[in-house]
Amino acid sequence: VRIVGLAVDIGAITIALDLLGTFVFALSGAVVGVRHRLDVFGVLALSFAAGNAGGILRDVLIGAVPPAALRGWWYIAASLGAGLVTFRWSRLVDRLRSPVQLLDAAGLALFAVSGARKALAFDVAPLSAVLLGTLTGIGGGVLRDLLVAEVPTVLRREIYAVAGLAGAAVVVLGELLRLPSLPLAVAGAGLCFGLRYATVRRGWHLPLAGERQPPSREP
Amino acid sequence: VRIVGLAVDIGAITIALDLLGTFVFALSGAVVGVRHRLDVFGVLALSFAAGNAGGILRDVLIGAVPPAALRGWWYIAASLGAGLVTFRWSRLVDRLRSPVQLLDAAGLALFAVSGARKALAFDVAPLSAVLLGTLTGIGGGVLRDLLVAEVPTVLRREIYAVAGLAGAAVVVLGELLRLPSLPLAVAGAGLCFGLRYATVRRGWHLPLAGERQPPSREP
Amino acid sequence: VRIVGLAVDIGAITIALDLLGTFVFALSGAVVGVRHRLDVFGVLALSFAAGNAGGILRDVLIGAVPPAALRGWWYIAASLGAGLVTFRWSRLVDRLRSPVQLLDAAGLALFAVSGARKALAFDVAPLSAVLLGTLTGIGGGVLRDLLVAEVPTVLRREIYAVAGLAGAAVVVLGELLRLPSLPLAVAGAGLCFGLRYATVRRGWHLPLAGERQPPSREP
Repeated sequence: VRIVGLAVDIGAITIALDLLGTFVFALSGAVVGVRHRLDVFGVLALSFAAGNAGGILRDVLIGAVPPAALRGWWYIAASLGAGLVTFRWSRLVDRLRSPVQLLDAAGLALFAVSGARKALAFDVAPLSAVLLGTLTGIGGGVLRDLLVAEVPTVLRREIYAVAGLAGAAVVVLGELLRLPSLPLAVAGAGLCFGLRYATVRRGWHLPLAGERQPPSREP
Repeated sequence: VRIVGLAVDIGAITIALDLLGTFVFALSGAVVGVRHRLDVFGVLALSFAAGNAGGILRDVLIGAVPPAALRGWWYIAASLGAGLVTFRWSRLVDRLRSPVQLLDAAGLALFAVSGARKALAFDVAPLSAVLLGTLTGIGGGVLRDLLVAEVPTVLRREIYAVAGLAGAAVVVLGELLRLPSLPLAVAGAGLCFGLRYATVRRGWHLPLAGERQPPSREP
Repeated sequence: VRIVGLAVDIGAITIALDLLGTFVFALSGAVVGVRHRLDVFGVLALSFAAGNAGGILRDVLIGAVPPAALRGWWYIAASLGAGLVTFRWSRLVDRLRSPVQLLDAAGLALFAVSGARKALAFDVAPLSAVLLGTLTGIGGGVLRDLLVAEVPTVLRREIYAVAGLAGAAVVVLGELLRLPSLPLAVAGAGLCFGLRYATVRRGWHLPLAGERQPPSREP
């Protein structure tokens, strides 16, 4: 019941944004696949992994199986569509780097918020709901990088997962305080998006162990 | 009920072939482990991963837990048996490359078909059943390669996953059209096996992004 | 009911030791993160993965979702605490290598035994319960290493997983023979701990394929 309630709150917009997020993340997977000179299947597999792994992992962990991404055909279609577009027009997609980063920040914001909301509807601790929201946002990127045998980008220097964490935390805290759901989701997503986008534009990063100086722009 | 019906259709042959598939995939895992100079435990772990990861992943995703591979001891025994054989006679197994490729193609065909059939019996979209069948076929090989920190072979140039996809698609399409199950399974497995085996013998591969010429034999 | 019985047998000590195990494994994850120059989020992510992946994987495989690690906040707190300590005092933790190895052996022993006990309470074969116990013990370390794109340490030369396997096997065999649970758990954990600790002190390792000489100290 509670899940239905959550879904109705935000309505069809959620689904549209969720699919857009999947599409954008799938683009990032396909770009990585093309760069590693994978064949067309490999590119599509990376698209699917990047677009859906976060949500699938969340659903498996909270026991919502089969995962939403496998219940209907539209998530799969969005991922494979992104993969085919990238494969066919790989140079173009490479040149669109800046709008893709914008959309990627939007995808992260949306997934972190919707992931945290879905987790809250299941039997997990609030802190876990924050983690699961973050995981929904970053899971696709992590698997994408692991599949090409690289250390996941989100584990390296840059505020990415932390932006997701912030967005998810706002939603979970607000729900605990029984604040209205829709403004809360917008606030969480806005915080995540703003943080992530500012990071990209300004080159912010998190401290490393043993660093003395405060965080600053990379040279 | 439906699962039981599916199982009875093809009967004991399915179990025998399933175990053979597990054994053969486990051989491939053990060979990779020996090549990377892992110790006997590492070799057995890779055998188990290669032989069972695809089916376990499928079962987790459709909510059929504990996975079939952990319900009885025979899958574990088949994997560990393959690992011990390879560990003891590693040179021999290395020399048997050609028959192993034949059996590997058979394992892929069987896993793709049985994986798609099992997924269909659960609450997933038909397109997802095709993906889950493919995943059952390739999952073991992907985990095997990730565990030794390599980009999975199936993501690189060669028709492997696509053969699994074709076999799974035949089964799912046919079941949607209510064609008889047994001939359908045989047709799907035959297509997958034929495609995969022809690929190995003729050196076919899928196009890369930016390639101009049509697919051809590698030099 | 059976799970409750198992838990009461060993009581609050189990929880304390379980949290200690999580903390110690999380330390190992954080150390690896610092060495790979990850940022503070990356270090915390590796802490969480190393401390909890084994138990989460076991819970997903036996269908006990949401996993115990996500049900309450204490496991998360233990992992993040270990990560922050390491991040702040990374040189100190590095110097404490020997006590950390001791605690790590204790964590392995505890996780292998508790993992096998929990798996037994679900619908898996005894042999699978042994594997699941081992997986609980080693899963965190495997994911930790995969996330930094390295071949997992436990797959390489050294008796680690085998110690976990031995501890889990003692527990499963004893439960099948209906021996009393508490002494059994102590015996299994003791065997695992002793085997692992002796290995570290004496440099034992398992044979590689093609090796002629018996296992001996590395030069």
